[in-house]
Amino acid sequence: MSDRPSRPTLAVIAAEAGVSPATVSKVLNGRTDVAPGTRERVEELLRSHNYLAPGGARRSRRSGLVDLVLAGLDSPWAVEILRGVEAECAVHGTGVVVSQVHEDDARPPSWQNLPVLHHSDGVILVTSRMTAQQRAQLERAGVALVLIDPVNLPDRDIASIGATNWAGGTAATDHLLALGHRRIGMIGGPADMLCTQARVDGYRSALERAGVEVDRDLIRYGDFRHEGGFARTRELLALPDPPTAIFAGSDQQAMGAYQAARQAGLRVPEDLSVVGFDDLPMCEWLSPPLTTVRQPLEEMGRVAARTLLQLLDGQPLLTPRIELSTDLRIRHSTAPPAIVPSPPSPPASPGGSHDGRSRAVA
Amino acid sequence: MSDRPSRPTLAVIAAEAGVSPATVSKVLNGRTDVAPGTRERVEELLRSHNYLAPGGARRSRRSGLVDLVLAGLDSPWAVEILRGVEAECAVHGTGVVVSQVHEDDARPPSWQNLPVLHHSDGVILVTSRMTAQQRAQLERAGVALVLIDPVNLPDRDIASIGATNWAGGTAATDHLLALGHRRIGMIGGPADMLCTQARVDGYRSALERAGVEVDRDLIRYGDFRHEGGFARTRELLALPDPPTAIFAGSDQQAMGAYQAARQAGLRVPEDLSVVGFDDLPMCEWLSPPLTTVRQPLEEMGRVAARTLLQLLDGQPLLTPRIELSTDLRIRHSTAPPAIVPSPPSPPASPGGSHDGRSRAVA
Repeated sequence: MSDRPSRPTLAVIAAEAGVSPATVSKVLNGRTDVAPGTRERVEELLRSHNYLAPGGARRSRRSGLVDLVLAGLDSPWAVEILRGVEAECAVHGTGVVVSQVHEDDARPPSWQNLPVLHHSDGVILVTSRMTAQQRAQLERAGVALVLIDPVNLPDRDIASIGATNWAGGTAATDHLLALGHRRIGMIGGPADMLCTQARVDGYRSALERAGVEVDRDLIRYGDFRHEGGFARTRELLALPDPPTAIFAGSDQQAMGAYQAARQAGLRVPEDLSVVGFDDLPMCEWLSPPLTTVRQPLEEMGRVAARTLLQLLDGQPLLTPRIELSTDLRIRHSTAPPAIVPSPPSPPASPGGSHDGRSRAVA
Repeated sequence: MSDRPSRPTLAVIAAEAGVSPATVSKVLNGRTDVAPGTRERVEELLRSHNYLAPGGARRSRRSGLVDLVLAGLDSPWAVEILRGVEAECAVHGTGVVVSQVHEDDARPPSWQNLPVLHHSDGVILVTSRMTAQQRAQLERAGVALVLIDPVNLPDRDIASIGATNWAGGTAATDHLLALGHRRIGMIGGPADMLCTQARVDGYRSALERAGVEVDRDLIRYGDFRHEGGFARTRELLALPDPPTAIFAGSDQQAMGAYQAARQAGLRVPEDLSVVGFDDLPMCEWLSPPLTTVRQPLEEMGRVAARTLLQLLDGQPLLTPRIELSTDLRIRHSTAPPAIVPSPPSPPASPGGSHDGRSRAVA
């Protein structure tokens, strides 16, 4: 596990190739603005010095390190994934090198270059986009790859771990429908993310099954942060016919929805029901405790790590996509609507909370 | 940066030394139950194979990796520190290997062994205990060390980063005193932690300056989690003469205090004021938004990383202890007490919130 090849620095390789270090890192980065002859010469040297695997084959020597690359390190969500990856890798004596990469990251080296610089055996990429070029580059470097919650649909042969987002979307919506809500606002994450699309589709099909028409006005998209939930909820509450319940795409969005409700003078859940997504540890400590769709984030991290280590052991990938199940955790942020809209029926008693606790604290 | 020595596995070294691999790892772990002669022979081999630095001097070759070892990866607190360490190291092209270690961790390898296994140049140890034996072992391995919020007082010559916990304790207590509170409950973290002692001392001296007698009954200790804040607050509220305000040792404890208040039918801040510690990003999104003592966690991570990299560059340690300043963030969880106890004065208007927002939502 502890063997590492001794290698010259990129500067040395640049000197050998008679090019600038910048050119060498261009080649490592798979950039196209390098003359073919130069690229070949540099790649040959990189290969001979063990920076690139021969013909893209896995490096024969194992470093005992893997890279965990996250789109952001700015939410409790990230630490849940990290805990799972770390716990599983620790059991196998493997270290986890953690990096944050923003979509617009201009910071060298670009993420797909990190495993090479860290001498790690593989990379777990979390909620990030991946281009064909980046993928090809990891192949050249002989780096194993597993995705968690990929933004865009990965190739069939790449391992990816996620949760049953569609089922989670239907479960949350069915719960609100069962309470009597008909105007249900949906706040997704970024519209182009797979998990967002699956959750919105689950929401849609639950409404359709219940014979409730889908109102495009009630579906909003934003980032997964507090700010996104706050802004989208304000928009929804400002509608001529505002929703009586909101299904947020993340627990943090739900906290933003809480604050938008508070600022509008609405009580949760008496005046507005809120459902989150993720089930972060804080949910049961919010005021009121948040009803949310649990996705097993730590377990997703564990499974991703296990899958990566299996790939490194040369075991075949049984299935490219693994989805762990979500389930609804009902707490105190959801209640019947104060006034049930058409079909006409007597208004519910003011503040129809099913539980006193959720009303106790300001 | 990318150079790594090629090294045989511990099993090979064990064979060379004519001992069991277990004995080799005992020596690496600095265990005392190894015959002196055997230890010398094994240490000699470990040194010759670059597992131990010659005479404890820093390894001449740099791996471009550092270890970040946290006592726990189960709170948003950890990710704030991690973000700072990662950001600073990324600028210097250094990878961060993240590990979680519990006080009672039986999982091999013990944390002080991780830098050797990861070939990292140094370790940042967060809110953990360190024994003289562990310290000596890092010395033998030639691993640089920086502490963040050490549990116990480190030797004078070890770099440690913290916040001005004493000043934070006085600021929080002065704020509550200025609002008119006299019965102020204090919830610390574990009693044996440096940061806890500093905060409690700050609380005490603020009370004494204000001529308010310190009531030992109002000072409680517990872990920094929601559960600890919840349990300690319930105890405090059950006192014959309960506090009108609570200064919690962490934002998570403060969330626990919110729930204990809610379950007791008390409103925050009208019936009970709550101050937290840390200023996690979620604080402004709580119901009500939490007044708390900010400690610059990300900056603490950055400074720790910068200090470690300076040590690795052979720069002298200017000062062993760096404390970054805390400051009070006043939001909506604190208000004058509903009834001000002696010295006698007219009772405040019921629900003396200084801001409507903090009363809006259930």
